[in-house]
Amino acid sequence: MRRVNVAIAGFGGVGRATANLLLSRRERYAQVYHADVRLVAVCGSRAGLRDPEGLQADQLTTLQEGLSGPDFIAASGADILIEAGPTDFRTGGPGLAYIHSALASGRDTIVISKGALVHSGKKLCALAQKSGAILKLSGAASAALPTVDLVEHSLKGCNVLEVEGILNATTNYLLDAMMTRGVGFDEALREAQQGGFAESDPRNDTEGWDTACKLLILANFGLGAELEMDDLIVDGIQSVTAERIQTWRSEGLVPKLVGSLVHSDGTFRASVGVKTYPLDDAFANVRGKDKAIRITSDAMGETLAIGSGKEPLATAAAALKDLEYILSARLAPAR
Amino acid sequence: MRRVNVAIAGFGGVGRATANLLLSRRERYAQVYHADVRLVAVCGSRAGLRDPEGLQADQLTTLQEGLSGPDFIAASGADILIEAGPTDFRTGGPGLAYIHSALASGRDTIVISKGALVHSGKKLCALAQKSGAILKLSGAASAALPTVDLVEHSLKGCNVLEVEGILNATTNYLLDAMMTRGVGFDEALREAQQGGFAESDPRNDTEGWDTACKLLILANFGLGAELEMDDLIVDGIQSVTAERIQTWRSEGLVPKLVGSLVHSDGTFRASVGVKTYPLDDAFANVRGKDKAIRITSDAMGETLAIGSGKEPLATAAAALKDLEYILSARLAPAR
Repeated sequence: MRRVNVAIAGFGGVGRATANLLLSRRERYAQVYHADVRLVAVCGSRAGLRDPEGLQADQLTTLQEGLSGPDFIAASGADILIEAGPTDFRTGGPGLAYIHSALASGRDTIVISKGALVHSGKKLCALAQKSGAILKLSGAASAALPTVDLVEHSLKGCNVLEVEGILNATTNYLLDAMMTRGVGFDEALREAQQGGFAESDPRNDTEGWDTACKLLILANFGLGAELEMDDLIVDGIQSVTAERIQTWRSEGLVPKLVGSLVHSDGTFRASVGVKTYPLDDAFANVRGKDKAIRITSDAMGETLAIGSGKEPLATAAAALKDLEYILSARLAPAR
Repeated sequence: MRRVNVAIAGFGGVGRATANLLLSRRERYAQVYHADVRLVAVCGSRAGLRDPEGLQADQLTTLQEGLSGPDFIAASGADILIEAGPTDFRTGGPGLAYIHSALASGRDTIVISKGALVHSGKKLCALAQKSGAILKLSGAASAALPTVDLVEHSLKGCNVLEVEGILNATTNYLLDAMMTRGVGFDEALREAQQGGFAESDPRNDTEGWDTACKLLILANFGLGAELEMDDLIVDGIQSVTAERIQTWRSEGLVPKLVGSLVHSDGTFRASVGVKTYPLDDAFANVRGKDKAIRITSDAMGETLAIGSGKEPLATAAAALKDLEYILSARLAPAR
């Protein structure tokens, strides 16, 4: 049985869920991959924990101040980094330094936050290629909704012509509430914030940036596009009034915030904005916090997926499928 | 560039579509896998063609009598067999001998027909394991609809608790026609046969056997079940009357022929029969010849996929994603 040490940087809800799910699957890793997977370090922005023999679930409640940063992870002896920090696509966020350091030193890296991938994706890929590290990002590309998976596996060999995605749970929840109750954006948002279903600063979701990040990651990492955020036309749901909602309802249409990608002759055009769908379109029935993607390819026509996993568990599970990919790749018997 | 020789056994619509799609992708295989993929032999039940340097698309219209059978394929120098014969799950069909011969001699095998996999799946897996051959079957498990892919990649690491699938295009088309026009099975079938949308002997589809085969293949090859056809309760749509259709319409319900699998404590229970769904359920809106699957897992909740590829191209594309899997596995640079 081969020892595999994992560290997690970024220890909010998703980082913690990932740690707990990983620890609960240690027996699976031993059986399927003959891997003795240990969680040797975790850290948030200021505090962390380390144990070269492996942390247990009951230790994770209290972190020690000062144990944090890329050097802390490097010194932990981790073979694999899972990065789960907050997303900031304008700067790359705190994850960028962790990911950069790990890839530069040849450490396989599983990225959950979107910021660094949007900000420095090309550079990070080049780093990984140079050092031989594996870079995976299932958790960043809409988590439980299969997106990059569909392109990489289910549509392997096909030419993807078009992608449409309902990629942001908060805006889907808000639009759903607006349609159900016939109210506009401001009122729906106020209610959602009071109920804890939207953040106090919801603009990253409502103005379309979160959708744009996921679309860009899918385009660049799944389809080989080389888009920058400036290439995207990004619109949100903040200007959807009660009046427009009423009109759509009377016309039997359902509005969704959609990321769209069109691929033609090697060129990708991407945008985010509200689109409407008739009631018998599968997109019209993507409810609440569910997400969906529809991919049109030359040989397989339309392939549609809808994901409705509960967060943060679903994102943790998405990141850990990357872990299994890495265990397969690193521990497979040579042919 | 490494030479890779492919043979196709079974040369009806799907076999021909696979041959043509493969030839149209030769440049892709060269670029992505550095593989010089040649189609060295094709055969139907009585006639075939062979060219050690590789057949071209324009040669495939006229086959030569007598060039057929497992020995013909073995002598063709093929590294990989694609089996695309007719399905007969009661005997294994003509594909069984081809698949058996290929796997026994260590030839990687891509199976499209379902018969042999249902009839002798366990034995074929054991053969492959013994000889080191790769056995893949994306084309047999609902073609363009991702099924085994979802379990193997998108839900990797998760425990699958339940599967529901609309897996047969003909019955979905018939039920759709019955609902749209308010008629029963007999009338819808007569019309579909006149229009060429159902076979003259449609029982394999309408009595649920095709759905049962696909469900069994997903369960056994995707989820590690060990089901035999006798373990399944199989019902079809032949007893759906105009009266039942009218009742469902008045209740706002949509009937679908569904394969269902429940997994609990390592035990799988599988059945095929008509289920009804309310209009806002994604399954209710799976129209015409589309197919769908909904998988419930412990960590990712519900994952739903809908596929609407056109046949036979979509099945050919499904089989050829297996080819790319094999090219990756065999030609990947050693780590």
